[in-house]
Amino acid sequence: MSIPERLAESVLSNPRADRVRTVAGLARRSARSKHGLFLAEGPQNVREALAAHLDRSTGTTAIDVPELDALYVTEDCLQHHPDIAELVSRAVSDGASDVPGGQRVFVRLVTDEVLRAMSDAQSPQGAIAVCRVAAQVLPDVLGGARLTAVLCRVQDPGNAGTIIRAADAAGADAVVLTTGSVDLFNPKTVRSTAGSLFHLPVVSGVEFGDLVEVVGVSGAQLLAADGYAPLDLDTLQDASVSGAAAPCDLSAPTAWLFGNEAQGLSEQEKAAAAHRVAVPLYGRAESLNVGTAATLCLYASARAQRRGASS
Amino acid sequence: MSIPERLAESVLSNPRADRVRTVAGLARRSARSKHGLFLAEGPQNVREALAAHLDRSTGTTAIDVPELDALYVTEDCLQHHPDIAELVSRAVSDGASDVPGGQRVFVRLVTDEVLRAMSDAQSPQGAIAVCRVAAQVLPDVLGGARLTAVLCRVQDPGNAGTIIRAADAAGADAVVLTTGSVDLFNPKTVRSTAGSLFHLPVVSGVEFGDLVEVVGVSGAQLLAADGYAPLDLDTLQDASVSGAAAPCDLSAPTAWLFGNEAQGLSEQEKAAAAHRVAVPLYGRAESLNVGTAATLCLYASARAQRRGASS
Repeated sequence: MSIPERLAESVLSNPRADRVRTVAGLARRSARSKHGLFLAEGPQNVREALAAHLDRSTGTTAIDVPELDALYVTEDCLQHHPDIAELVSRAVSDGASDVPGGQRVFVRLVTDEVLRAMSDAQSPQGAIAVCRVAAQVLPDVLGGARLTAVLCRVQDPGNAGTIIRAADAAGADAVVLTTGSVDLFNPKTVRSTAGSLFHLPVVSGVEFGDLVEVVGVSGAQLLAADGYAPLDLDTLQDASVSGAAAPCDLSAPTAWLFGNEAQGLSEQEKAAAAHRVAVPLYGRAESLNVGTAATLCLYASARAQRRGASS
Repeated sequence: MSIPERLAESVLSNPRADRVRTVAGLARRSARSKHGLFLAEGPQNVREALAAHLDRSTGTTAIDVPELDALYVTEDCLQHHPDIAELVSRAVSDGASDVPGGQRVFVRLVTDEVLRAMSDAQSPQGAIAVCRVAAQVLPDVLGGARLTAVLCRVQDPGNAGTIIRAADAAGADAVVLTTGSVDLFNPKTVRSTAGSLFHLPVVSGVEFGDLVEVVGVSGAQLLAADGYAPLDLDTLQDASVSGAAAPCDLSAPTAWLFGNEAQGLSEQEKAAAAHRVAVPLYGRAESLNVGTAATLCLYASARAQRRGASS
């Protein structure tokens, strides 16, 4: 794939340019809030941001994910990732703006030095997308959701990213971060989502009380992942296969609550749930990492829901 | 819990002492190899190292886990963690050496400044155990193993730690790291295991060919976790519940192969497995993090094996 001609004509090479400073500034929370923009770095994020943009331009998607505002990429990156070069080529083509609602994306080739100056990463990977935070309405997002992951004050960017990625893989409809959680648009969190931010709506800064109300209206059950719960996930999974009676049905629409790394879920959070469920510990580990527990809970629900749908 | 008197008598307060330099040096691979020692930092690792030591002293455990060589802890840490103070008290009591094979542990109180000088962590958590690498014989470790996790050139310390912790939680018998994997005794890897290194044998630096041979002799099946495999994990789980025919039986003794973050398993690694198995992707995520995939595979085997044993 050759690099589109109109891009090759001008390469941004001055690391002290105003534009470079503005992009780099988005590593700071205050600048992100002010502009409603954030950085999605690396080939996987950029690929998914471009794909979501093209889907949106052609009207094939309606989900609330961030919009691509601008893309900065090195020539080297495009040569190493021909699929990204192909997506860029489509995104900058005149055709894109012929589609109703479609528009060309602002794309600039940059030097390695400029990319390093823009990036928050220790080893920048050749591409940075500037994206616009999606305007999301919680009742709309959770209205018809069958499976939702709720991060209650999860603090570690890597854990948050892992759970968002696992929720995406399990086919969840949405992820919610309550107030007091890690900043979703922190470049570290975004990197660890590996592009999933562009696959399903992720809503942050939600008051826990609002979440409970909206989930209640939607009719989904609220389950709390709690290592100390008497009810265990495998009992529920077995019941879901055998049809045995169980305190709750994993195949029903569900919002899972996952707690803070050090303290787990608060008393208030646990009390709001219809049931508390533990991932069983078969060995000697004292507890599971929240990302590990969330993965097992979300996949258990996804399997039960698929089984329910096919039977 | 008060601090044992013999400890309170002398506090190591000179951050430039030879002993401090020696301990700090164990953050380097060369020093670890030379001395056969490594650092286990933070309350959770230290708690498990002490517990394993006491179990060993009283002859209640025989598994091949690292031995506690020395412990450095701040007064503040003992006051915040009375359970650790209690374990320390037992480990330094005269009684410990009355037990056959038992011995008192070398424990020193240190100042915050000394702990910071010893630690590799950005925010040291008040306690550092110096531990001796366990001498392990692969055929002995894998001889009767029903569930083993094999990390094939996994590079990220956090991923390796997550998999070791998940293997421990799933009740696996052992973890193996092949040559080319992250250094198991790197302080970052050890921290992310959250104490599981002291719960089950973890053998590193194993040649892949040797692993295949030993697993073959043990009679366990070798399964490769491979996102591109036609056979999927949920089909196998369903078959294991319903008793339907399936290409392989999850309840049989199993060693799972998990691959490198960027490249996955090599052709050679995949070819050595009896079957390649994919974790299904129900949503739009392109792939799973290796820690997430490993968690789901190990728990699927653990559940099938428990169901097999109870039926």
